[in-house]
Amino acid sequence: MDIQRFFDEGEQLFLPHLSIDIVIVGYQQDELKVLLLRFAKKWILPGGFIGRQESVDEAAERILKERTGLGQAHLKFLNVFGDKDRNFSGQWQEMFENAGFPWREDLWFNTRYVTLAYYALVNMEETETKAGIFFSQPAWHNLDNLPPLWMDHASIAAAAQERLKRDVSLEPVALNLLPRQFTMPELHQLHEKILQQKLERSRFQKKMLALGIFERLPKLKTDTPGRNPYLYRIKEEG
Amino acid sequence: MDIQRFFDEGEQLFLPHLSIDIVIVGYQQDELKVLLLRFAKKWILPGGFIGRQESVDEAAERILKERTGLGQAHLKFLNVFGDKDRNFSGQWQEMFENAGFPWREDLWFNTRYVTLAYYALVNMEETETKAGIFFSQPAWHNLDNLPPLWMDHASIAAAAQERLKRDVSLEPVALNLLPRQFTMPELHQLHEKILQQKLERSRFQKKMLALGIFERLPKLKTDTPGRNPYLYRIKEEG
Repeated sequence: MDIQRFFDEGEQLFLPHLSIDIVIVGYQQDELKVLLLRFAKKWILPGGFIGRQESVDEAAERILKERTGLGQAHLKFLNVFGDKDRNFSGQWQEMFENAGFPWREDLWFNTRYVTLAYYALVNMEETETKAGIFFSQPAWHNLDNLPPLWMDHASIAAAAQERLKRDVSLEPVALNLLPRQFTMPELHQLHEKILQQKLERSRFQKKMLALGIFERLPKLKTDTPGRNPYLYRIKEEG
Repeated sequence: MDIQRFFDEGEQLFLPHLSIDIVIVGYQQDELKVLLLRFAKKWILPGGFIGRQESVDEAAERILKERTGLGQAHLKFLNVFGDKDRNFSGQWQEMFENAGFPWREDLWFNTRYVTLAYYALVNMEETETKAGIFFSQPAWHNLDNLPPLWMDHASIAAAAQERLKRDVSLEPVALNLLPRQFTMPELHQLHEKILQQKLERSRFQKKMLALGIFERLPKLKTDTPGRNPYLYRIKEEG
């Protein structure tokens, strides 16, 4: 969609007062990463609106695909951000003027928004990030050390970080962040990073293998320093 | 609010396309209960719209208070129901005509709704249920055996039941369903009911007491058949 159409027809195309923001989480070189788009001197989470002809989940899937190229991913609803004064009129104006777009008070999106926040866990190697109509090329930032974000997006990113912590203690969802073939030391290091605590290595490995969902490949990872650990992958169904 | 004002001014008062539905769960005589309102031959979850001057959470708290009198409760966001064809026009019409209200196609709420579902755990003894402007006196129904519900409310109730199961396995939230003073056998029975499985009694009691959040009262529950168990309550803070 081009900018002119967004300005002129957005009100007919999208549900009013509702937006979607997605915390897209990746993992690289022992750092959890979040995909952000730049506008002027600050950064923003990937987001968008809900088409009148699509479900809320479909809108989230479309936005994820637009920014990462991924047709499917571990994409989960996170929370509603519904404060009564959640109206970032002043910030929209600053963003638009900084980028040379005309600002008018009566733009259809200059109003209160309830945002439906999602979070996605992705294998960064499989993503091809793309810019949006308002924002420059996306970039991955360390979740532990985010730059200044627009609107209340820092709170949304923090909520995703908490949720990820809780989810990995219940289910092996962190696997979505790794390449298809991985070693137990990599899985261990990732869990330590997410939970922000040390996990005793052999107990962790036993617990993971006891899930019965992995198969060990007949080869070793050889590009790692020190000893060469086995590669694993998730068992094929059936 | 009276019905005329709801018809005439609702569009100015509420955010469009957004509703709230609450699965209000209670517990009595070893049955989990859900509060439902009756309209014609079917039942509906308590719900409403989000005022333009209130946050989403405030709207949920107001709706809970309007139906139960409770100023505070364990009220948590459950999920978004956002299907693209979530438009119950035909059902609204049937409900209105059955109750003798005039129906018009151009009523402001005759459109697609994204609903934000909450669930609340309440002590039924503390509730004073009240009817809404469209619906008759609320009634508590067994969660295990709900009557036919309007719209997609059966799915919303089922989601609350699943969430409750998950939550009690993580936190002692079931306490919100009991009177302030309760016995370990009562707590045990409630957990078995929620989890739909037998739990070994002495192991359950040990696990609960190990939480360190209860104090035993210097009296026994005497109106129970058989032996008289101790009463417990949650420790006061500080």
